[in-house]
Amino acid sequence: MTYKLYYWPTLQGRGEFVRLVLEAAGQPYTDVARLPAEEGGGAGAILSYRRGEQEGWLPFAPPILVHGEHVLAQMPVICRYVGERHGLAPADEAGRARAQQVLLTVCDITNDAHDLHHPVSVSAYYEEQREAAIRKATSFRAHRLGMWLTWLESALVREGDWMVGHEMSYADLAVMQVLDGLDYALPVAMASHRAGIPALTALRERVRAQEKVAAYLASERRIPFNEHGIFRHYPELDDAPT
Amino acid sequence: MTYKLYYWPTLQGRGEFVRLVLEAAGQPYTDVARLPAEEGGGAGAILSYRRGEQEGWLPFAPPILVHGEHVLAQMPVICRYVGERHGLAPADEAGRARAQQVLLTVCDITNDAHDLHHPVSVSAYYEEQREAAIRKATSFRAHRLGMWLTWLESALVREGDWMVGHEMSYADLAVMQVLDGLDYALPVAMASHRAGIPALTALRERVRAQEKVAAYLASERRIPFNEHGIFRHYPELDDAPT
Repeated sequence: MTYKLYYWPTLQGRGEFVRLVLEAAGQPYTDVARLPAEEGGGAGAILSYRRGEQEGWLPFAPPILVHGEHVLAQMPVICRYVGERHGLAPADEAGRARAQQVLLTVCDITNDAHDLHHPVSVSAYYEEQREAAIRKATSFRAHRLGMWLTWLESALVREGDWMVGHEMSYADLAVMQVLDGLDYALPVAMASHRAGIPALTALRERVRAQEKVAAYLASERRIPFNEHGIFRHYPELDDAPT
Repeated sequence: MTYKLYYWPTLQGRGEFVRLVLEAAGQPYTDVARLPAEEGGGAGAILSYRRGEQEGWLPFAPPILVHGEHVLAQMPVICRYVGERHGLAPADEAGRARAQQVLLTVCDITNDAHDLHHPVSVSAYYEEQREAAIRKATSFRAHRLGMWLTWLESALVREGDWMVGHEMSYADLAVMQVLDGLDYALPVAMASHRAGIPALTALRERVRAQEKVAAYLASERRIPFNEHGIFRHYPELDDAPT
């Protein structure tokens, strides 16, 4: 039973956290909206779910994962579902709850990073809210970025080689992805924190070195970061913290 | 083994979703930070966790629930943990995943509602970002509020009397809370949507009529909404959608 992922075809976004878990698990999946429209792909495949044209449970927004009769939305729910089925999650209940805590905190960071370029309205262009974005990014670099990185580094150091337990889980994949995204969006600000996050830096290298992850990142299936996604590089939003 | 909740003592915030589940479950709990400081309460009890002075897993932020050796953070993780133990969650895996989807979407709405009054910086006062807040709230009322309510109403109508399955779950409590919060923050905008959400309105009444929920809402344990929490009533942010 092949997984079917529904996510915007030209950007990483929240779907990328799901793609990484599917790829690291070595599970075949169809990235439906990246198929040609004549094969049922394109954005229309996603919009059909959003408009409620599919039967059964009504998901709110992509990413949506369809697996047999399961229709799952909300990225943390999907990552947990796939991870727990394919050895990318702790086996014990306490560990499973911790992996979700890491993922939900990664979601909080991701939301924060998104709002840097869209602080006022997701329905308006960046250029229409550039002034507020510069204020927001200044505050984020001064008060938020270090807070997020310090928590991730501290939680990792307490735990050991992986964010939760003794093996790589979907939580580690998500941490790699959010760090990659922040590096893309805010290279100057992130460089100023590099010396303070040695454990996280080592974790990223361990994740990237996993055979299936490395193969995915080098493949055409990995969409490059761009200015349509969550992590966007606008130089005027980046600077060293003062 | 009594639950210990760590959350800010003077506001509802994200802790209120947890309090509602504990109360509806009829479980005794200590709302630690609401105790006097000399009994180990006050904000210091929370800060001790945030500073990493407690052993074991490092939670990121309150709400934090301690239950024996379990230390849980992230509101959706806590609500799931308590709900699944005390008959306030579906028994089957698919239903459990759906309840989390509802809760995570409620979190998205809650984050949106928070950012109405703090679009630029959580480290600055509302008054310092009032102009951006007015722009954000205008966009929220025009594009977001109806979208959220339409999804909640449609998902409920498809499912039946409750958000997930055939009994009240923590998802229903969360939906009641977010609707109550939006009504407090944006009474004019919400009134304009009232006719379009009959199923949600009936759901709220069913939840409120539950004996334990009703007793809690009428008690002194229920902190009133106020302008320190997530849902804040600033009249300049409220209006009928145009």
